[in-house]
Formats: sequence, C-alpha cells, structure tokens
Amino acid sequence: MTLQLYDLAGADLARRFSPYCWRIRLALAHKGLPVETIAWQFTDKEAIAASGQGRVPVLVHDGKWMAESWDIANYLEETYPDHPSLFGGTAGRGTGRYFSILGDVLVGAIFPFVARDIFDRLEGENQAYYRRSREARIGMTLEAFVAGREARLPAFRDSLAPLRLTLRQQPFLGGEQPLYADYAVFGSFQWARCVSPFVLLSDDDPVRAWRDRLLDAFGGLARQVPAFDS
Amino acid sequence: MTLQLYDLAGADLARRFSPYCWRIRLALAHKGLPVETIAWQFTDKEAIAASGQGRVPVLVHDGKWMAESWDIANYLEETYPDHPSLFGGTAGRGTGRYFSILGDVLVGAIFPFVARDIFDRLEGENQAYYRRSREARIGMTLEAFVAGREARLPAFRDSLAPLRLTLRQQPFLGGEQPLYADYAVFGSFQWARCVSPFVLLSDDDPVRAWRDRLLDAFGGLARQVPAFDS
Repeated sequence: MTLQLYDLAGADLARRFSPYCWRIRLALAHKGLPVETIAWQFTDKEAIAASGQGRVPVLVHDGKWMAESWDIANYLEETYPDHPSLFGGTAGRGTGRYFSILGDVLVGAIFPFVARDIFDRLEGENQAYYRRSREARIGMTLEAFVAGREARLPAFRDSLAPLRLTLRQQPFLGGEQPLYADYAVFGSFQWARCVSPFVLLSDDDPVRAWRDRLLDAFGGLARQVPAFDS
Repeated sequence: MTLQLYDLAGADLARRFSPYCWRIRLALAHKGLPVETIAWQFTDKEAIAASGQGRVPVLVHDGKWMAESWDIANYLEETYPDHPSLFGGTAGRGTGRYFSILGDVLVGAIFPFVARDIFDRLEGENQAYYRRSREARIGMTLEAFVAGREARLPAFRDSLAPLRLTLRQQPFLGGEQPLYADYAVFGSFQWARCVSPFVLLSDDDPVRAWRDRLLDAFGGLARQVPAFDS
C-alpha cells in the first residue's frame, strides 16, 4: 500500500495551505494511514493530469488516481472499513456531507478576507496565475475585493453562531472525538491561518478553541507548517 | 408504557405550532412510539409545573416529567436503544446536537418574519401574553419587528446555502433516511408554515422539497395540522 497526496504549496514549499487538502491530511491521520505528500503548485497541471482534472487534493493509491475531497474521504472510508470511521458509522455519511458543504461555504465566506494575502504567499508564475484566475472570477482586483474587510468581520463572526454554540457544549462537532465533519470545517480555518495574518476568530471564541484542539490533534500535524498566529 | 406530550397549540387547538414540539413529535414517530399529545397554551404554566419550568415540549413517561427538546431526544434514544436510532448510532449524537442548535438559530432567524402572524393565531389571554412577553424581549412592537420583511428575505434565503447545497445532493440531512438532524431543522420551517402565510422558501428551493418530504413522512403526520400553503 502506497498513498501519495498532491498537496497545494506556496512559494515556501512547506506552506501547505489548501482547505481541501487539509481535510484529507486529517482524514488520513484519523484512519491511521501514512501518506507521502507531494508539494504541488497552481500551475503544475501536468503533474496531476492522470486524475482527469486540474485541482488538488489528488490522491494516488497503488496506481489509482482520484480527486475531490469528498470523493477521496468516501474512498478511504470504503477502502479501510476496519480503521476508525470518518463518519462515525455509515449513518453519519449524510451529515458528513453537510459539513463538507459547510466547509465549502466557509471557504467562500473567508476568501474575501484573505484573497490578497494568498498572493503574498506565492511567487513567480504561480503568483501571476493566481491573480489572473481569481481576478477573472471575482471581477475586480484582489485589492478591491478585500477592501473594508474589518467592517465585514462582525457579520462573518455572526454567521458562525451554529458552530460556536455547538462547540461551547462539546469539544468537537463529532462530540467527544473529531470526525470528518470537524476536518471539513477545520480545513477552511487552517487555510486562513496558513495564508493570512488577519484575525478571523477572537481569542475567546469557542470556534478558535476548537480550531486549536485540531491543531494539536495527531501529534500537532496541522501545526507543523508555516502559518500565522491569527 | 404511556407517553404524553404537552404540545403548544393556538386558538384552534388543532394548530400545533411549536418548532421544538415538532422535533419531538417526529422523533417519537421515528422511534415508532405512540404518544398522547395534550394541547397546551402559553399561559397554562400550572399544567406543566411538575417539569420544573414553564415551556413545552414537556414529555411525561410513566410519571417522569422532562423538558427541553434536546434532553428529551436523548432520553428517548437511551430509553429505547432497540428502536431506530435518532442519531444513526452513538457517534452521531455530537453532530445531532449541531443540528439541534442550527434549528434553534433558525427559529431566531425566522422569528422576525413570522412574529406578528403568530399573534393572529392566538386569542384572549394567550394573545395578550404573547404580545407582552415578546415585545418585552424584542424591545419594540410586533408590527415594527416584522416591518420590511420582504427586503430581508434574500439574506435569509442566502443563509440557507449549506442546507440547500446538501439537500440538492441527498434527500435528507441524514442521507437516504431522515435522522434527528432533519427533525430539529424541519421543526423551524414547520413552525413557520403553521403560523404564517409568508413564503419563506421559493418553489424551486431544494430546502422546500426536503421540507415537503418530511411533511409526507410517517403517514403525513406533520401535514395533519392547520397550516398555510407557504
């Protein structure tokens, strides 16, 4: 068994910052599966062409290529049924998908805060690609997109109320122990701290305390990359 | 075994409209447990005094009184472990609590749309109690509170994105079959349609299609009360 993960990296190849790759890094750790990560940058499309698309995470397992974090999580769950369940059993797959989607929605909500800072974590052709592709998508410059982010912060924090109230009651979304639900949402906050010094979560926010618990999980796996103390 | 549920009713005693009581109605049906419901109105505090507090749902099981929908759901899960699980197994309890809290947050988000309409579903001392207690809480008249609700509707609908995107992929939050996660969130939408003609969900919204599937569940249990086609 060999597992390889193409993992998004910045100009500093140790800075692994994809929210979706972090889901899979933690899912692999949850399953107790060793993985070789391969630093991958936005323009390295050829390296992952065998996956049939151009984005990471891409997992390679004994010559089989696959993409999309949700599909990869389900593949791991089905391929390693005797390892700790990512969903707390088969009945948890449905709610697991909700949290996967909630993580996606959070990426969209956080992007207007960190979009310009990501640019600073890149260099050369990756930096140029990032600006060109993202500015085409958002229809304005990265600088205009993040302008006024301080004023938008209270509404963002308010939107976290369901997470906050839950994490005031229990240490993880999964309860006493984390599940894929946790990793899917955590990935979005890990992405933010890997790319931006902007403080999204206040010091006394239970969401921040939960994020920090997941930074400590699996021997501090998610702390072992360059990031901001934000 | 006798199970009795004190269930919030309007001036029409058949109009059972509490979001929290609906969670328990569906949880009992999920468990296959028959229940005698007792119509209860806001001012009937004495009838439920044995529960140690003044709000419904209140469940009475063989002389034992209990309140709070989340506590009742857990009581049912623990007391009837051989009946279908509300959480899809013990590992689903943590994420179940998240959806219970999400349902609470939705009650808060929907209240500014339906607060005045609830008044019209009540009469006499209950109507007076409702206006007095709610206006003290919100710090303004019910009429001022709901003013401009049409303008607030797009933001409310946007806030449902994680639910919507999930329910575009699978029939229930629990996956192929509903779990307590579904009932906890459904209760908030059932409350709205029981009290208000205001259309919260557009016809083509997957959240509405999901709500309608839950109206059909358990022999149409949740359809069998006076409500608006909203």
